[in-house]
Amino acid sequence: MLAAGAAGAAGAAVGAPAAEARRRRRHRRVYDVVVVGAGLAGLTAARAVRAAGHSVLVLEARNRVGGRNLDHPLGGNEVVELGGQWAGPGQDKVLGLAKELGVATFETYSKGESVYYYGGKRQTYTGGIPPASPAALAEIVATIEELNQMAAEVPADEPWKAPHAGEWDPESVTTWIRDHDHTAETRYLADLAIRGVYGEEASQISLLDLLAAITGVGGDFNTLIGSAQSIRFVGGPQQLSKLLARKLRRSLRLRAPIVAIEQGKRVTLHTPGRSFRARRAILTPPKPLIARIRFNPPLPPAYDQYFQRQPMGSVIKVNAIYAKPFWRDDGLNGQAISDRGPIEITYDNSPPDGSPGALVGFMEANASRALYGASVATRRAAALESFARYFGDAARHPTGYVDMVWALEPYTRGAYGTFNPPGVLTSLGEAASGPTGRLHFAGDGTSGEWPGYMDGAIRSGERAAREALAEL
Amino acid sequence: MLAAGAAGAAGAAVGAPAAEARRRRRHRRVYDVVVVGAGLAGLTAARAVRAAGHSVLVLEARNRVGGRNLDHPLGGNEVVELGGQWAGPGQDKVLGLAKELGVATFETYSKGESVYYYGGKRQTYTGGIPPASPAALAEIVATIEELNQMAAEVPADEPWKAPHAGEWDPESVTTWIRDHDHTAETRYLADLAIRGVYGEEASQISLLDLLAAITGVGGDFNTLIGSAQSIRFVGGPQQLSKLLARKLRRSLRLRAPIVAIEQGKRVTLHTPGRSFRARRAILTPPKPLIARIRFNPPLPPAYDQYFQRQPMGSVIKVNAIYAKPFWRDDGLNGQAISDRGPIEITYDNSPPDGSPGALVGFMEANASRALYGASVATRRAAALESFARYFGDAARHPTGYVDMVWALEPYTRGAYGTFNPPGVLTSLGEAASGPTGRLHFAGDGTSGEWPGYMDGAIRSGERAAREALAEL
Repeated sequence: MLAAGAAGAAGAAVGAPAAEARRRRRHRRVYDVVVVGAGLAGLTAARAVRAAGHSVLVLEARNRVGGRNLDHPLGGNEVVELGGQWAGPGQDKVLGLAKELGVATFETYSKGESVYYYGGKRQTYTGGIPPASPAALAEIVATIEELNQMAAEVPADEPWKAPHAGEWDPESVTTWIRDHDHTAETRYLADLAIRGVYGEEASQISLLDLLAAITGVGGDFNTLIGSAQSIRFVGGPQQLSKLLARKLRRSLRLRAPIVAIEQGKRVTLHTPGRSFRARRAILTPPKPLIARIRFNPPLPPAYDQYFQRQPMGSVIKVNAIYAKPFWRDDGLNGQAISDRGPIEITYDNSPPDGSPGALVGFMEANASRALYGASVATRRAAALESFARYFGDAARHPTGYVDMVWALEPYTRGAYGTFNPPGVLTSLGEAASGPTGRLHFAGDGTSGEWPGYMDGAIRSGERAAREALAEL
Repeated sequence: MLAAGAAGAAGAAVGAPAAEARRRRRHRRVYDVVVVGAGLAGLTAARAVRAAGHSVLVLEARNRVGGRNLDHPLGGNEVVELGGQWAGPGQDKVLGLAKELGVATFETYSKGESVYYYGGKRQTYTGGIPPASPAALAEIVATIEELNQMAAEVPADEPWKAPHAGEWDPESVTTWIRDHDHTAETRYLADLAIRGVYGEEASQISLLDLLAAITGVGGDFNTLIGSAQSIRFVGGPQQLSKLLARKLRRSLRLRAPIVAIEQGKRVTLHTPGRSFRARRAILTPPKPLIARIRFNPPLPPAYDQYFQRQPMGSVIKVNAIYAKPFWRDDGLNGQAISDRGPIEITYDNSPPDGSPGALVGFMEANASRALYGASVATRRAAALESFARYFGDAARHPTGYVDMVWALEPYTRGAYGTFNPPGVLTSLGEAASGPTGRLHFAGDGTSGEWPGYMDGAIRSGERAAREALAEL
């Protein structure tokens, strides 16, 4: 059923010319570890394997590295980020890697007032708390406090072990919010916050998954919606992947999508045209894409059933470029939250020197889905209408516009990352955790600490490398 | 990226011998419709296409037909069913097909008393209502009535259009039950009923999905847990597929798993070794398996995201065979429900003449998962211990034992069928309904009427054939 690959070459060895023999030797080569995916998880895993003195090969489906890190050049060393872009305090792994690789960081622009658009009314405010009604604000404070208290008993790596896991896992975040928050404004703000974290509607997400994420970022929900978005990378975070890839040199192959994996004494990974053998494999793609690989023998049933239940959210990320960040002249920091879409969240996304100006906006979950079939022109018009609503008519005339529909990317198929629907963690979380056979799993969605973040991706890559190295 | 298949053959035409030319001609053939999957959905679709005078080819991954219908021979024309087995009043399509194909039906054995095992106590009872506490019984009646009333506003084919869809879809069935039922016994019975319908924990299933299923079986929850299990097929229901397949003759290919589908002016379906071309394709595999096919161009994002969210439940179906149905001598009908597993539901599964005797038991959802890693001997011991608990020590000594771990089947990967987790129907149901490009979807999980039943599979096959024929 699988491509013959390496096995087929052996029979024809006699009399083959030298080039052919070399080719076959290469085909027969057994790497200590093959890593699938050249995002931060895969590249840091490969680096750790090599640092331990073992051979490694990274296979990347796309013609580029970085996965969900993808930067759009603006000229010079300046970029806007089409994918992951932020770090924050406590994200020691990604900040440490940046330092090591010589990538500087800077603060997300936040001087001045933010915009709050709710119920058809535009207000401005300073600080982290929008000018919602007093009733709503009281509920929000109580809600966050309760979530944090609940999260305190949820182990980030093993949320199914929380004493109340059986009570919390069947809840979607929506039903929990509905039971705890009674003003429409609080419910809107809570839904918006969840979309901001997951790129998905709260209705699809297990409460236990959210609590584990709170633990994973240090125990405070405010981190998820606030300080985790505070630090940016000069020249863009995709540089981290590019710099790591450069050191791997010939140990990285692009345009090598894995369609099948066989396990026996070795693990054999098949692209449509070639096969690669290894003692261990580390798989880093988003979980729904791992589910699409043909495994022989098939994955154990718990893993297969688990991967059937790990969807990606959906985000269209928009950047509008302006000659200068005109909103700053109005005392605005470029941040807006809104109950009217399709862009409900914005930030100032200008380079460090503010030239050019850039606004980034997010169409998340169902708001993004409503525009799946739209042309770029339609998306652009909808985006600029949103920006203008928050920052004035000047927003209607950008010098540049670029967006990214992550659900259209064949090798990503959604954003920000994967999540657990209700009931999944307590049914399958434990049975599908850890390696199986010669396969190890990494990626931001496999990290208890900073899940869904670059930091989590790096942690997962290093963890998977440790697992694999221990078996070599 | 895809196997070259048909395209590659054309260049080498000059001077090829006759056999080679024939082979290439066959490769170049364009069918009106290619159907993927030889279960009831695929086979009835193919029959309808052919009846309309169009050419059709059915490609089946396995070396057998029937999909989740699989019968185990006992000798003579007698079988026990390892997969789908029941029909019931109102399932006119499957009953009509059986009549047409000359497959007789008979009533599931139900004379005598049923067993209720709860809280360590074994009781017997007659009729459909177990001897639960009066408080629990009152709640059960009220719960079913309320579910039926809610379902009355949910269109089976378009549940997202229900006026309260936005309220009900974010609920898992568990949270709704928790809010409406307060005795432990009612909650247990409700959870058991849901596992019996879906093979999955109530915690994973959207309330809106359940309501749509109630509408789909005629509006009464009792049908789902009662009369839909009342009719069996003499000689087993897999005969329906076998008889349909026989009429297709050379238009059916076994061992032809589809790994990739290309769409252009035609649709090209690739197995690992061959390619087939058609004007339209009807895809009937379980949705998580459709998600694993490589599509070029990729599926539209709404379909892709939808297929990321359509998991299969998990069931281990057990049959124990005895010289005779000894429980009947004790006045028992072979039916038991229990709060202790791994088998929580049983039926008398003997052939019509009661010789031999057979008990069928279901290990469902998490109870099945706990035994994924167990040997057949361990599963057998656990099953017989359950049967003995309900029907006495004689159950420990079967003359035969056969079970089926559906999650282990590479071309099924779960049972009974797929379901919608919370929030999915209202986020993606509408956008991912109907055909896309040259692709039509069928299978029991695509039918509003009798979803998850053989009857629904047939309806879906006939519907998909109508869709495809309208485009030819």
